[in-house]
Amino acid sequence: MKTLLSGMQPTGTGMLHLGNYEVLKSWVQLQNSGEYECFNCIVDWHALTADFDKKENMPEKIFNVAAEYIAAGLDPEKSVIFIQSDVKQHAELHLLLSMIVPVPWLERVPSYKDKLEKLGLDSYGFLGYPVLQAADIIVYKANLVPVGKDQLPHLEIAREIVRRFNFLYDDIFPEPQALESYVPYIPGTDNRKMGKSYNNYILMCEDEDSIVRKIMGCFTDETKLRRGDPGHPDLCPVYALLKIYAPSETDRIKTLCEAGDREWGCVKCKKLLVSSLLETLKPFRERRNELLADKEELRKILKKGGEKASERAESTMREVRQAMRLW
Amino acid sequence: MKTLLSGMQPTGTGMLHLGNYEVLKSWVQLQNSGEYECFNCIVDWHALTADFDKKENMPEKIFNVAAEYIAAGLDPEKSVIFIQSDVKQHAELHLLLSMIVPVPWLERVPSYKDKLEKLGLDSYGFLGYPVLQAADIIVYKANLVPVGKDQLPHLEIAREIVRRFNFLYDDIFPEPQALESYVPYIPGTDNRKMGKSYNNYILMCEDEDSIVRKIMGCFTDETKLRRGDPGHPDLCPVYALLKIYAPSETDRIKTLCEAGDREWGCVKCKKLLVSSLLETLKPFRERRNELLADKEELRKILKKGGEKASERAESTMREVRQAMRLW
Repeated sequence: MKTLLSGMQPTGTGMLHLGNYEVLKSWVQLQNSGEYECFNCIVDWHALTADFDKKENMPEKIFNVAAEYIAAGLDPEKSVIFIQSDVKQHAELHLLLSMIVPVPWLERVPSYKDKLEKLGLDSYGFLGYPVLQAADIIVYKANLVPVGKDQLPHLEIAREIVRRFNFLYDDIFPEPQALESYVPYIPGTDNRKMGKSYNNYILMCEDEDSIVRKIMGCFTDETKLRRGDPGHPDLCPVYALLKIYAPSETDRIKTLCEAGDREWGCVKCKKLLVSSLLETLKPFRERRNELLADKEELRKILKKGGEKASERAESTMREVRQAMRLW
Repeated sequence: MKTLLSGMQPTGTGMLHLGNYEVLKSWVQLQNSGEYECFNCIVDWHALTADFDKKENMPEKIFNVAAEYIAAGLDPEKSVIFIQSDVKQHAELHLLLSMIVPVPWLERVPSYKDKLEKLGLDSYGFLGYPVLQAADIIVYKANLVPVGKDQLPHLEIAREIVRRFNFLYDDIFPEPQALESYVPYIPGTDNRKMGKSYNNYILMCEDEDSIVRKIMGCFTDETKLRRGDPGHPDLCPVYALLKIYAPSETDRIKTLCEAGDREWGCVKCKKLLVSSLLETLKPFRERRNELLADKEELRKILKKGGEKASERAESTMREVRQAMRLW
């Protein structure tokens, strides 16, 4: 059975948006396929690479992510759900791997160059992001990592690190491969990709009023100024979201919109999206709030996951230390 | 009571030379002064920065260092003697500190620039050497670090890291200061500084034949070609070693040598050095061999030290995690 490692950072408030939700749904599918042993990690140490100077409370953020993981269908009985910092072996392996990773490998990573230039992120830890990520993956000997395109260079480095380790010491790690599941593109309310930094997101736990406000104020189609103008659904974020949240309606809507039907304007599309979204998110939000109402229990679940993960990680570390002829 | 952190790398075979011995003796004095709480660390992870591709057995090297620590007078009842890798908190703190250390701080360290150029050492871990060293020190909230001049830039970075941590999060770390004890300069048999990389060293555990051979073949004074030529004791490594191992004889020898006395040539100096050195090292070597004969007991001592160190380190880490608002 192949092992799969996935992870999300508890950034910002830790509350996930619809884009994250689609990723989560793909993880849930992988979990429920029964074909993989799944480790779902909340990578709190990684969140420090960009947020090291934020004074928010990490446990609160982690609780949010964990509750939303579970509410979205990740199941502690089927997957190992845990916090990175509960498994100290990630830090130990990161340190050991750091000895065999040439700095130029890291300087070439696109996201490093990008954020160094744009955000001035120049910390040693941020430069080493792919080393920590490699440790996260290989400490479970994961074969597969469900990642987006932007993460492929990191995974490439993880494989290079594995090859180097296996060559220098002993052949103990499989080369982790990307598992590119289909995850639909989720536009934000301004029609750029939905993302925390753009403030164009709709949270999975967003309350009703706020969803109504955000969707009703959503960008649609700048060429469709009046009811009756023909629209371009394929360029419209509301339509893109309808394809996910009201798929049975989209054929009909596409025809009406493109024809510039006077009875079907953007407001109707938006109202339909609001009601479909509320319907979809309601059970999720209820389950999430239930989970967050008993944080002690939630912490217990995460601790239990951490113990399972630690056991596996420690078994790998015993092999690593032996291969490197350490103690 | 001030806390003191000292450390040596188990490089090569882990057997220490006379230069190391002088450093050790200064640590023993500090320990026996009763003025400090002493943590004496065997920094095996650091040894990987340069020796990552060596296939020697780290435990053997560590046993050698530990036996020589204790044979030289470090006392597990008075000091905490332990292995770095037995205290995983060093790796965790290293990772957390990495988030607040700008890469340019590290690129400016003289030993990094030097070894990058001369040895091609360009690993991420070697770049981060001062970060790990800072973690080693401050995880015990050490106030003092007995270091040589070459280590002063590292300690300066450790202080910068402390200031940055205390500023960003909470004022929990003291700024570690260098404790510059007097350690005599020890020349090697070729009159360069004694060092492992020059192959000009005499080991503390060197056997008798080998000591005789090395000392009798030792460089003395290139201007003193014949018995009767006046010598320059202050430029002679044999004389420098006699000042340490036969101090009561050196005034007399200096006069004879400078006068070019026909009865006192270099061979006599060397023979005196051999006999003094053998006398000094004999009890050391016996104690060392005794300790190495029972490695199980030696491991126990190190483990006990590691437990004491871990307890202290974990207590610091609890403060660190709280200050950073981590879990």
